[in-house]
Amino acid sequence: MWRVEIRLAGAGGQGLGLAAVVLAEGALLSGFEATMTQAYGPEARGGASSADVVISDSPIAHPRFEQPAFLLVLNQKAWSRFARQISENTLALIDAQLVHPAEVVPRLIALPFEQIARDELREKIAANMIAVGVIAHLTRHISLEMLERAVESRSPERARRTNREAVRRGWALASATIANA
Amino acid sequence: MWRVEIRLAGAGGQGLGLAAVVLAEGALLSGFEATMTQAYGPEARGGASSADVVISDSPIAHPRFEQPAFLLVLNQKAWSRFARQISENTLALIDAQLVHPAEVVPRLIALPFEQIARDELREKIAANMIAVGVIAHLTRHISLEMLERAVESRSPERARRTNREAVRRGWALASATIANA
Repeated sequence: MWRVEIRLAGAGGQGLGLAAVVLAEGALLSGFEATMTQAYGPEARGGASSADVVISDSPIAHPRFEQPAFLLVLNQKAWSRFARQISENTLALIDAQLVHPAEVVPRLIALPFEQIARDELREKIAANMIAVGVIAHLTRHISLEMLERAVESRSPERARRTNREAVRRGWALASATIANA
Repeated sequence: MWRVEIRLAGAGGQGLGLAAVVLAEGALLSGFEATMTQAYGPEARGGASSADVVISDSPIAHPRFEQPAFLLVLNQKAWSRFARQISENTLALIDAQLVHPAEVVPRLIALPFEQIARDELREKIAANMIAVGVIAHLTRHISLEMLERAVESRSPERARRTNREAVRRGWALASATIANA
């Protein structure tokens, strides 16, 4: 039995709830169980937002969140809040331009999610889906085909095409640069 | 400090995920904290779906789900699955036409959610939002004004008007018939 916990953190408006839904649905379509939890609170209004995904090959009775295998952080405020949850089992993925960690953490990868989204996809907001593609690849449990199907079914129509491109871009980015992270 | 747990259960396609989001957002706008958790699994594909909401006046560190104060059940399959979670502190709300409990449970209210949605709102799918209106009223922590604002911001545009009517209808139903449940 395996269980992978993923925390996505950043600002409200960076689309982390949708990112979590797409990861959960991609895992489901790949034959696994998943839960997705989103927190709503004054902090979310104030600019810090987070969503959690748990993926497992067995039913998830309690979506209790213990220790993220992956922590995605897309803004500095979220970094300040969540950096302390990083253990040696956590791979931290941060936006290279938006997050500047003062702490030394065991496993950290900085990627220019927002810059790629802006320069290559002409949609800054698609940074979330590039990150989804990276994380899905790194879990080794979600197939690209199922991830694309998930992103198509869950994205609003106007964003469908860009979001599909973005997860493919993220997937390729992970394959090329960090597959052994 | 208080904490209210709500489980929404039924079939995939009955819109329980959106119902959970609207309750969580309504609580947020009313000044509280909330989390919403949705499970994705083979069971969801097979027709059973559930979503959980936790509302509190304090930050919810772990959205662990212990004992629902409210359990909404919109189909028989979900009843079979979740009826055993009912304790004396749980108010079970079931669809009067779609669920036929064999068990005796301490506190049970059967309401014709789907029938009202179909006959009065001409949209069977709006049964979920009638239930949201009922539950929001019963929690005593969410205001109708904030609930309406939540449903407007979270519904797809084509469903916005019907969903707002539906939460108002549910709110009125709770006021009229079960406010002291």
